[in-house]
Amino acid sequence: MIGRLNHVAIAVPDIQAATAVYREQLGAAVSEAVEQPDHGVTTVFVELPNTKIELLEPLGEDSPIANYLAKNPVGGIHHICYEVPDIRAARDTLVAAGARVLGDGEPKIGAHGKPVLFLHPKDFCGTLTELEEA
Amino acid sequence: MIGRLNHVAIAVPDIQAATAVYREQLGAAVSEAVEQPDHGVTTVFVELPNTKIELLEPLGEDSPIANYLAKNPVGGIHHICYEVPDIRAARDTLVAAGARVLGDGEPKIGAHGKPVLFLHPKDFCGTLTELEEA
Repeated sequence: MIGRLNHVAIAVPDIQAATAVYREQLGAAVSEAVEQPDHGVTTVFVELPNTKIELLEPLGEDSPIANYLAKNPVGGIHHICYEVPDIRAARDTLVAAGARVLGDGEPKIGAHGKPVLFLHPKDFCGTLTELEEA
Repeated sequence: MIGRLNHVAIAVPDIQAATAVYREQLGAAVSEAVEQPDHGVTTVFVELPNTKIELLEPLGEDSPIANYLAKNPVGGIHHICYEVPDIRAARDTLVAAGARVLGDGEPKIGAHGKPVLFLHPKDFCGTLTELEEA
């Protein structure tokens, strides 16, 4: 079912400082910061040859990463995202196997403009797992 | 400096259960479990088209992931690993920029048979970051 690792998302308290770590210390290609008010985050993409790292800073009130950063004030890996060819078929297979999908179970349009779902961390090795329709 | 994302490592309390999640629920190709007594872990690799997930279960006493699992009993993402062309050159550049390398700073032979180093999470967005010479 799952295909490529689309991205690893790292929540950070200061996206400019995090961008400098990746660009200047680790020597990676990084995008400009983009505010995504619909998703409650500001994003920077670190472009690697085979995948990308998504740096996330909270934006506005009720950011979905605010709780994570309250518990992990220096930041940390927030989730990983796998590509699937058909997100509703993936969801139906997982739910039939007993896995929990977060929210109302309907795919939402994610930060990349594609349908996404999040799976319950406790059902997936303690890892918040996003599925994105490729 | 950094190249491909070599792997994302997920620490788990029960590697057979974690393997079943990835193979049966997520439909991924997974390797056999291999005990790596020199590294204090049992490993399973989840092969994705562009990178891999490394499932880690503690092996023996003094496993390097025992503390992590004590704090995260259902498991979680333990570290990410980037490839570099020359690990000593990478280390020297990072140390000159003020970053901390764990241990004595000398590369060790990792679970893949290649030289590796670990960087201090607090200097890298709260993320335990491994460098592996590609």
